[in-house]
Amino acid sequence: MLDAQHIQALKEIVGEENCFDDKAHKLAYCYDATRNRYEPDAVIFPRCEEDVSRLLAYCNTHKITIVPRGAGSGFTGGSLPVNGGIVLAFEKHMNKILEIDMENMVARVQPGVVNKRLQEAVEAMGLFYPPDPASEEYSTLGGNVSENAGGMRAAKYGITKDYVMALRAVLPNGDIIRAGKKTIKDVAGYNIAGILIASEGTLAVITEITLKLLSKPKLRQSAMGVFPTIESAMNAVYKTMAAGVTPVAMEFLDNLTIRAVESKFSKGLPVEAGAILITDMDGNLPEEIELQMAKIEEKFKENGALSFKKAASEEEAKDLWFARRNASQSVTIYGKKKLNEDITVPRSKLPELLQRINAISERYGVKTPCFGHTGDGNVHVNVMVEDGSDPKQLEIGHQAIEEIFKAAVELEGTLSGEHGIGISKAPFMHLAFTPEEMNLFRAIKQAFDPNNILNNGKMAL
Amino acid sequence: MLDAQHIQALKEIVGEENCFDDKAHKLAYCYDATRNRYEPDAVIFPRCEEDVSRLLAYCNTHKITIVPRGAGSGFTGGSLPVNGGIVLAFEKHMNKILEIDMENMVARVQPGVVNKRLQEAVEAMGLFYPPDPASEEYSTLGGNVSENAGGMRAAKYGITKDYVMALRAVLPNGDIIRAGKKTIKDVAGYNIAGILIASEGTLAVITEITLKLLSKPKLRQSAMGVFPTIESAMNAVYKTMAAGVTPVAMEFLDNLTIRAVESKFSKGLPVEAGAILITDMDGNLPEEIELQMAKIEEKFKENGALSFKKAASEEEAKDLWFARRNASQSVTIYGKKKLNEDITVPRSKLPELLQRINAISERYGVKTPCFGHTGDGNVHVNVMVEDGSDPKQLEIGHQAIEEIFKAAVELEGTLSGEHGIGISKAPFMHLAFTPEEMNLFRAIKQAFDPNNILNNGKMAL
Repeated sequence: MLDAQHIQALKEIVGEENCFDDKAHKLAYCYDATRNRYEPDAVIFPRCEEDVSRLLAYCNTHKITIVPRGAGSGFTGGSLPVNGGIVLAFEKHMNKILEIDMENMVARVQPGVVNKRLQEAVEAMGLFYPPDPASEEYSTLGGNVSENAGGMRAAKYGITKDYVMALRAVLPNGDIIRAGKKTIKDVAGYNIAGILIASEGTLAVITEITLKLLSKPKLRQSAMGVFPTIESAMNAVYKTMAAGVTPVAMEFLDNLTIRAVESKFSKGLPVEAGAILITDMDGNLPEEIELQMAKIEEKFKENGALSFKKAASEEEAKDLWFARRNASQSVTIYGKKKLNEDITVPRSKLPELLQRINAISERYGVKTPCFGHTGDGNVHVNVMVEDGSDPKQLEIGHQAIEEIFKAAVELEGTLSGEHGIGISKAPFMHLAFTPEEMNLFRAIKQAFDPNNILNNGKMAL
Repeated sequence: MLDAQHIQALKEIVGEENCFDDKAHKLAYCYDATRNRYEPDAVIFPRCEEDVSRLLAYCNTHKITIVPRGAGSGFTGGSLPVNGGIVLAFEKHMNKILEIDMENMVARVQPGVVNKRLQEAVEAMGLFYPPDPASEEYSTLGGNVSENAGGMRAAKYGITKDYVMALRAVLPNGDIIRAGKKTIKDVAGYNIAGILIASEGTLAVITEITLKLLSKPKLRQSAMGVFPTIESAMNAVYKTMAAGVTPVAMEFLDNLTIRAVESKFSKGLPVEAGAILITDMDGNLPEEIELQMAKIEEKFKENGALSFKKAASEEEAKDLWFARRNASQSVTIYGKKKLNEDITVPRSKLPELLQRINAISERYGVKTPCFGHTGDGNVHVNVMVEDGSDPKQLEIGHQAIEEIFKAAVELEGTLSGEHGIGISKAPFMHLAFTPEEMNLFRAIKQAFDPNNILNNGKMAL
């Protein structure tokens, strides 16, 4: 608990109107997409980097926990104040696009800018910011950087870390640092931006982000392939990409997911199919897209596709994508509680991963609809618990999840392709990292944050 | 000095035949491309990761300095044993391409593999490893990762860090760690690979590197534009790229460099030109290349190009590139000692950077031929000292260099786009980093290497 004296001091730093310890604010900032709840002792809206610096210096002196928060849309509890303390929210003031530099194709933004707002702003100028997490409509770029957000377009365009050129940040002691440059090449000093990305707000508070932009591809075409089995679809994924095709996206839905969407929306989906793959190509020339689409069709058919359909219009493209876009909300027909994980493996291991998930699903008697970004090996596996209030059912679900994590790691994959560790995956860190590796993580945390004030209790640190 | 007991212990770890403290070995491993000389006390060729681990554990216990070394081709002294100790050389045993995984388009190599060897091996399989530092014929991938090497193709394809998916490394205490995965997405734990890249061997010894590969573009075309002034050429660079063109390379030579190459090789170069730009496009379709080439020609001419020539054959392309490839060796006609720096600025700042270099050159009465990778804002500026043995002339040269660094930093650029800091640029770190930022670097060094045994005396740490 923060006593009245601390609250007063904090109000002096950011102004009365930007520091709250009333119940309403505590409730509004106590949750994220995990639906866990941890109330903070105060919610603060810093006006500027200088505010952040003074806040951190104060908290460091008084050993007060401080948790930076984007939109609270994370799936692993990264922004939850599990030990109380202060939630630092950027949406009120530090939410500005500071610069779109067309000459150098770079954007400079504050952490509270919503991903989609930047996408739209740069597209209006013929530029392109590729990372598009499913939360793009509300998640912030500060959160995206802190979790190293991915998205649908990662197969061709990579993820958030591939676009961060420079950061400004405040260290727990209040020091303001810059990391990186508005240049493609910069090898002076340690790559601090590199380690702040994906550090889940545990090392420093990001106050400004410089992002690389591309020029916007003029053309885009979608296509869908229907496969008899999940294995045939997974083989098609990696063989298509190994043939030199670089689709923007290569998404899949398994049979359970297809059935779920169909039962909810009656779209005439192939409910007997083992899987469908939905893919997008982009480019600036029709010939370029045609060439790649022909190669995709060839590889899909070589690997057993029952049908292959190219969208002839924007409308048809939307139709092809409908099933994928509505996958997540549809699978809830299989259970009230969804344990949603985002394991990732090298693409060639996808067939085996899906086989193993299937075996685990049978062994534990749980349904595990899968869909996701197979173009980069990223599978959203959903362990469905029929009654989430039944601790026994929940326990079985968690056991199945642990088995799935083990399978991913055994197949040279990772616990998390997109969502981060936070609190949800912290219990599984030992599956992926050795004690020596965990020691190194802790030494790095200690180097940045010796008093452990910043988003403590996360990542099994 | 290492006493006989230590040498004996080291020999027991790696075998008699892999540990040397004779004069010949000390001399052979005492220099790099800076031509500075610092003799090590011993040269060791580890056979495997386990050797590296046992060596580091031993050195950590006895506080013995250990300096990892690639090919010794660095320009900033990164691999020089400035405080003596052990040089760790990988060329004898740890020089193997372990795997080229075509299904996932990934290569796994040991640190001693020469860059070009990997390029050739993957190209024979239709794949492509883009980073191509000028030293590609001899520099090693371990060195490339440690210095985050760039190259000619960075404008389109980025630099070494954009291809490192995972590393294995040994910490100074002997702990073996893995960092990253053979997956595009991986957000579990701190991004240790991100901070090891460009850390110049000061944090850990890299023992295995997993690199992303692309599929090899089928077509390539080169072109050259001749410009009346350096400013017109620099404007053409950034305006071409801001128009959405993504050339593989966009290289320039200034008037002094053109004259130097011409005087040495009599190739009929335009010696009155202010600058020439040489560019390469690649792709899989002739239409794609044509479209982009047309845009380049348009932008070059809009910005004052006197002529524009596309290579009609492989032979003509080689001819266009001749001047650029022989720039570095040719500028020595202006002085025996070349102070060669690799500053980088945002592309739109190139015209002003070149103006400032020109003014500095006049103020100090030194010739400063410039050439380099303008597509990514990277300029190789050469301050020529007529007589390198004259301390007065050398002092003037160093003053000019310091002014040039200041100009680069003022223009939002960096001290080094490719070469790193090592010892050569350590005295200038205060121009680019605040005391707070330097403190953070030191805290990170301390977290990895509390006894400061690994490549100490570098990067102004």
